[in-house]
Amino acid sequence: MVDTAPRTSESARADERASSSPTKGAAPGASVDTAPAPKLDVALVERMLRGSYPDVRLEAREVAKDPQFHKVEGLTLDEQRERTLEQMKVQAERGFQLRAFPKRLGGYEDAGGNLAAFEELVTADPSLQIKGGVQWGLFAAAVLHLGTEKHHDKFLPDAISLKVPGAFAMTETGHGSDVASIATTATYDPETEEFVIHTPFRAAWKDYLGNAAKHATAATVFAQLITKGVNHGVHCFYVPIRDAATGEFLPGIGGEDDGHKGGLNGVDNGRLHFDHVRVPRENLLNRYGDVSPDGTYSSPIDSPGRRFFTMLGTLVQGRVSLDGSTTIASALGLYIALTYASQRRQFVAGNPDEEQVILDYQRHQRRLLPRLAQTYAQYFSHDVLLSKFDDVFSGRADTDENRQDLETLAAALKPLSTWHALDTLQEAREACGGSGFLAENRLVGLRADLDIYVTFEGDNNVLLQLVGKRLLTDYAKRFKGASAADLAKFAAGQVVGKAYNEGGLRRVGQNLADLAGVGHSIEALKDHETQRALLTDRVETMVAGIAAELNKVRRAPAAEQAAAFNTQQNELIEASRAWGELQQWEAFTAALDTVTDAGTREVLGWVHSLFTFGLFEKHLSWYLIHGRITGRRGAAVTAYINRLLERLRPHTLDLIAAFGFAPEHVRAPIASGAEGARQEEARAYYAELRASGQAPVEEKALKKKAKQRG
Amino acid sequence: MVDTAPRTSESARADERASSSPTKGAAPGASVDTAPAPKLDVALVERMLRGSYPDVRLEAREVAKDPQFHKVEGLTLDEQRERTLEQMKVQAERGFQLRAFPKRLGGYEDAGGNLAAFEELVTADPSLQIKGGVQWGLFAAAVLHLGTEKHHDKFLPDAISLKVPGAFAMTETGHGSDVASIATTATYDPETEEFVIHTPFRAAWKDYLGNAAKHATAATVFAQLITKGVNHGVHCFYVPIRDAATGEFLPGIGGEDDGHKGGLNGVDNGRLHFDHVRVPRENLLNRYGDVSPDGTYSSPIDSPGRRFFTMLGTLVQGRVSLDGSTTIASALGLYIALTYASQRRQFVAGNPDEEQVILDYQRHQRRLLPRLAQTYAQYFSHDVLLSKFDDVFSGRADTDENRQDLETLAAALKPLSTWHALDTLQEAREACGGSGFLAENRLVGLRADLDIYVTFEGDNNVLLQLVGKRLLTDYAKRFKGASAADLAKFAAGQVVGKAYNEGGLRRVGQNLADLAGVGHSIEALKDHETQRALLTDRVETMVAGIAAELNKVRRAPAAEQAAAFNTQQNELIEASRAWGELQQWEAFTAALDTVTDAGTREVLGWVHSLFTFGLFEKHLSWYLIHGRITGRRGAAVTAYINRLLERLRPHTLDLIAAFGFAPEHVRAPIASGAEGARQEEARAYYAELRASGQAPVEEKALKKKAKQRG
Repeated sequence: MVDTAPRTSESARADERASSSPTKGAAPGASVDTAPAPKLDVALVERMLRGSYPDVRLEAREVAKDPQFHKVEGLTLDEQRERTLEQMKVQAERGFQLRAFPKRLGGYEDAGGNLAAFEELVTADPSLQIKGGVQWGLFAAAVLHLGTEKHHDKFLPDAISLKVPGAFAMTETGHGSDVASIATTATYDPETEEFVIHTPFRAAWKDYLGNAAKHATAATVFAQLITKGVNHGVHCFYVPIRDAATGEFLPGIGGEDDGHKGGLNGVDNGRLHFDHVRVPRENLLNRYGDVSPDGTYSSPIDSPGRRFFTMLGTLVQGRVSLDGSTTIASALGLYIALTYASQRRQFVAGNPDEEQVILDYQRHQRRLLPRLAQTYAQYFSHDVLLSKFDDVFSGRADTDENRQDLETLAAALKPLSTWHALDTLQEAREACGGSGFLAENRLVGLRADLDIYVTFEGDNNVLLQLVGKRLLTDYAKRFKGASAADLAKFAAGQVVGKAYNEGGLRRVGQNLADLAGVGHSIEALKDHETQRALLTDRVETMVAGIAAELNKVRRAPAAEQAAAFNTQQNELIEASRAWGELQQWEAFTAALDTVTDAGTREVLGWVHSLFTFGLFEKHLSWYLIHGRITGRRGAAVTAYINRLLERLRPHTLDLIAAFGFAPEHVRAPIASGAEGARQEEARAYYAELRASGQAPVEEKALKKKAKQRG
Repeated sequence: MVDTAPRTSESARADERASSSPTKGAAPGASVDTAPAPKLDVALVERMLRGSYPDVRLEAREVAKDPQFHKVEGLTLDEQRERTLEQMKVQAERGFQLRAFPKRLGGYEDAGGNLAAFEELVTADPSLQIKGGVQWGLFAAAVLHLGTEKHHDKFLPDAISLKVPGAFAMTETGHGSDVASIATTATYDPETEEFVIHTPFRAAWKDYLGNAAKHATAATVFAQLITKGVNHGVHCFYVPIRDAATGEFLPGIGGEDDGHKGGLNGVDNGRLHFDHVRVPRENLLNRYGDVSPDGTYSSPIDSPGRRFFTMLGTLVQGRVSLDGSTTIASALGLYIALTYASQRRQFVAGNPDEEQVILDYQRHQRRLLPRLAQTYAQYFSHDVLLSKFDDVFSGRADTDENRQDLETLAAALKPLSTWHALDTLQEAREACGGSGFLAENRLVGLRADLDIYVTFEGDNNVLLQLVGKRLLTDYAKRFKGASAADLAKFAAGQVVGKAYNEGGLRRVGQNLADLAGVGHSIEALKDHETQRALLTDRVETMVAGIAAELNKVRRAPAAEQAAAFNTQQNELIEASRAWGELQQWEAFTAALDTVTDAGTREVLGWVHSLFTFGLFEKHLSWYLIHGRITGRRGAAVTAYINRLLERLRPHTLDLIAAFGFAPEHVRAPIASGAEGARQEEARAYYAELRASGQAPVEEKALKKKAKQRG
């Protein structure tokens, strides 16, 4: 029996240093091995990755170490749901959930810190994270953000303490991302001063609601507010739904269990419907719209459209927190797969006496290291997003413009990072082969739990389309009054002008006449200003091209305009993705600029280059078609990526050590050092066998000898 | 309550025809709507997709309809394992498993038909499929293919009847894809005329073996055969492992349960180890290597290397069957997502009075229709593969060359189709939003079960590398004796010559001087000979480039050669993928050529174009860099894909109807017509409300009116 106890990343690293041979073979044209090898300052980078909430993160990571919060695989649906509820109760008792709430209710009014702590929970159990998110980040947060003081006093304490588990009843079976079109009604009855909540047909059932299948005794219900014959649009109501003592639905309320899901089975998702359920007038969460006893509607926001978006905007925190959570999950997946890859040996390559460590295979590096670089970029861009979020939600910089910028940035980054997590966890699982498929090694469970992150809190494609519309709006503002000739010139990509918004794009310091040359040389492509120009130019040129197409039908009937928009939809979503990638690049670049330690700067610079050249490679056909990178140099992008892989190989374990995971966060036997120990045992066995003189001769060797004699 | 009973695809299609509006807006430059619309002959295409085993497939689909074979979600590990075993027993009683076995033992000696039937089971329950695959396709098949008549008589009847459930003990914890390096030993003892099976250390435990955790009472164990002090390499032994009555391990044998996995939890994977376990000499499955009573080794195959590959080659059927199974699973995922997409409405687009069917959104088409085209290609290429398999395994054309071609083709197609299934099932699940995440809609369960298909029966990356080595070998043969100048010329891509092997690549009818021009025009790119030339040229140029790099170090020490090979590994795997894509293209093209019905030819031709232009778009940067497609025309590739999407949109339901799924295969409530029924109900509700005069006025409309009044 070998020791399978988890080891620290430090000892795993030491193991690897001892057993791994240096990079073999000269890299084409590289002079990597002649200079003294740079060294990453792991502690420094670890601090960088903790971002703006270092203490909160460290504290939350301590919580996440506690075995009672860890996911247990193989439980039944009921067992997993009950376990998750119990975990939440413990958290509530310990006050883990208090950060976001008002000081007068025992909270800290620390919006950003709350999300940082929430994000770190992903290593413990995503079900716990999301069920907690439903309770405190959606149900209680709706009371906090959409209600007023009277609601805070009346409903928040029990929501915070989990005395009242709640559901957030927004989505309907018939309407997911299009919340404005939900069909549940809340009709005001001045006779009794009550709202009548009603589900008119099956498609209007509330659906996919966490806590709704079993535990919720109340819900924040979104419905069309109707009073005096006028529909004032979607508002939110506090509605008790179950008898806390019996767990039975209250009169007029019914529901169904969504049953088994692809993951997150600790969260009891379900459906709710309402048959003329009456709640007091005061249960309208009335921060953005109110109804007086006689049924008169009033709102501080005159435009129904702006009012709707303001109400929904309070929910941006879900998107922000998913960006952070999935980045940590990607890091964890890479930690597991890269640790294993640095110990696992398979097939003989250069050295006939020893199998090669699989991370020394170029393909294996190709599969994992670019994803590591992307994950690094996301750590930095997430911190930018989280800081913006805190600026707005702390009230420090709560302007309409900042809110819109925050929403746009969240809508761009959340899709990229959630998709990246699924892609990375899958590649990590495949890179660990059959071991990766065992639940004990966590990759499959994490991926299954995170699957829904790409479509909840805003479907990724819908979010990117929102970003695209913002890009088009900003573009239109900028060129208001411009001549058709100017527009055509811009659309043809001849000018790189001012960036769209100060939040993200910066002024590009050169025009495309300069750009046309840089693609000739890899050296030029390494320059950060050039990189910025290439990435920015791509967004601008794509948006300009789409705008030019839409401009052609701007006086046509609505149906024709819609059809024209539809022909540009895919391109628009790609442009939004490009904008999101640019934001990630800006954040990574800014973070790199703060590093003064030479070794760290060099190694982290290679990671930055790998991320950036990865973007160039991914979009290479665009750069070639648009003449930004020449064909002759296009192939050099790939060759340079291969060089970066060789350079980064020896620093891989330092780079994953900087994620700061403890064995209690990792909990995967294959990343525990067990693989290295097994190989040690095998090596010792063969050495002893050879020494004993009892080792069998290989038939192949005999045949070869016979042939030589023959 | 609405009717949620499954409907036939026919009725779903009729629904959609009635409710879907015609394509809005003119396609750029298209004249699609002026000609009479072509019509796919669904029955004809359905017959085409059934391929060479139409009757077997229809029969197996009837079996797959039986609810007792359907996966039940949410069972515990033990429940699911027992259910799967019970399902297999029913199958065994009914003789479902007999097709591959000798006639004298009750079988049909129908190797190809056996796989066709196996593949169709994927719609019932992948666990049943794979646990059956372990029993009959691996354990019993090892006895059949590696044993001789005495083994067939002694072991096969009980293996076939499931009286002896068996494990296939090849993989070890320390060695997955590198079977030649396994460490379990089988040392011959002439005193007792027994083999001693032994596990020398922990890394040599057999691992991830289906049936090993609980049910297997015997195993076919792969071990290094040692006799008279010589190791003759990996051979296979029949080893009883458990007492059938008690379920306890026999003396000297131990094991562990692999526990919960990411999917396929009906299969009880586990580990086995052997402590000097003795089996009679006759238990060596001795078709390719035998040991006489005195310990003398003999083999019909002199070369240990060739002997090893011949033994492993008998296992190719696993790869072949996964190619077919995952293609059917992809089709099922697309059937579900496209049916839903053709009924689901979300957001108002062109028509302000009705939300748009989501399949009318360009992005939604982009997400699903190219994957549909890929799936179509795979149906045809799989049938080519399956026919080749039957040619070899029926003995009709069992030559070394055919076996090698079969193995190469299987090694190329299995990675492409298994990855495609995961990608497609994921996109399908996302395209169904929250509904897609519910287990009842099957997409998440199918994806979880199929996840392991990409790394078992040969890790996809390892398989593609095998293909790459074959491509390099063929290339070397072809240019044996060629001058360095010839090689350089070829590597530079100036000549397209004869194809690598007659099995796959055909002679390309033009040289690159012609090719250089075609990229200027989309029309030219539509020509099949041009498409073949472009796809073939890409493979050849990539292989030539790699060969040229390797050629530089061909006299260098082994370590340097290995390092040089490593720098080409990623490119080689990409070249293999390109070769696999070419095989898929050839099969699709050949199938299309058989169609005489004009409407079918046109619609299926668009599917073929979508597949082909999808390849051009995916590899566009390569075609641009290498001057095969000009920059000016590069963008037109994407524009043409968008046109194809518009053309195919009205034929989508016909194309998925041709997969031939019955409601009993689909079993997903969202693809049952329930979505359409819910919308009907909602529409009727609103119509009645409007007619009643009780409908509330929209605040927005009031405000607009007030403004107009000024």
